[in-house]
Amino acid sequence: MPTAQKLRDSGCPLAFGLDVFGDRWSLLVIREMMFNGKTTFGDFAAIDEKIATNILADRLKHLEAEGIVVKRRDPENRRRFVYSLSPKGRDLAPILIEIVLWGDKYDRRPQALRAASDRIKADRAAFEAFARSDN
Amino acid sequence: MPTAQKLRDSGCPLAFGLDVFGDRWSLLVIREMMFNGKTTFGDFAAIDEKIATNILADRLKHLEAEGIVVKRRDPENRRRFVYSLSPKGRDLAPILIEIVLWGDKYDRRPQALRAASDRIKADRAAFEAFARSDN
Repeated sequence: MPTAQKLRDSGCPLAFGLDVFGDRWSLLVIREMMFNGKTTFGDFAAIDEKIATNILADRLKHLEAEGIVVKRRDPENRRRFVYSLSPKGRDLAPILIEIVLWGDKYDRRPQALRAASDRIKADRAAFEAFARSDN
Repeated sequence: MPTAQKLRDSGCPLAFGLDVFGDRWSLLVIREMMFNGKTTFGDFAAIDEKIATNILADRLKHLEAEGIVVKRRDPENRRRFVYSLSPKGRDLAPILIEIVLWGDKYDRRPQALRAASDRIKADRAAFEAFARSDN
């Protein structure tokens, strides 16, 4: 998150990570690219968690500045942009996977979605390879 | 983070996790308990990342409400409280470890601290056992 005081000034690698993706929304946008094959601003704006478009625009700009996301013109529609994960962004896969497993363990509500955690528990290496690919 | 609209309403396990610890500060407070053996409000208030005491108080209350942190009277000083991680909080260890490894890989500044990542890379299982213990 862009702020005056950067957590990473401490030198801590955890603080460094939190500066890059440690807010309520960044990992949800990364989830859409990593697990759901989404690429456009409209795709991200449509997530079930109801992200405000000004916050989404801010987070995409921040993730691009941090080298997590690459923004390109859509080759099929030059007036549109598409977003994808850089190698640095794809390397977040193990973090997202661990959060999914933790959430799966502790969210016992009937509406909890188990599709991703079931796939991870069945074959974690295959799921990580999928997450790192252009899915 | 406490807000009107909860991310977890979507049912996504990642969103569930972000509701519990997905803000700039919660994982730094958890880091102090998990890796650095810290237990008191004063300990957490003294972290290098300069957390405001009102934010710290809010985050501790939130983490306690979410069952991540247990607050008890200090047996050695009944006027003071000590904080520790619950089993649910200790289960965050793999998430913190993955963030440390990612931060270590991408933070190339000379001031980046390598002590934790060096220990993880030398013996990850031993480090995770340490993180889950009363260190």
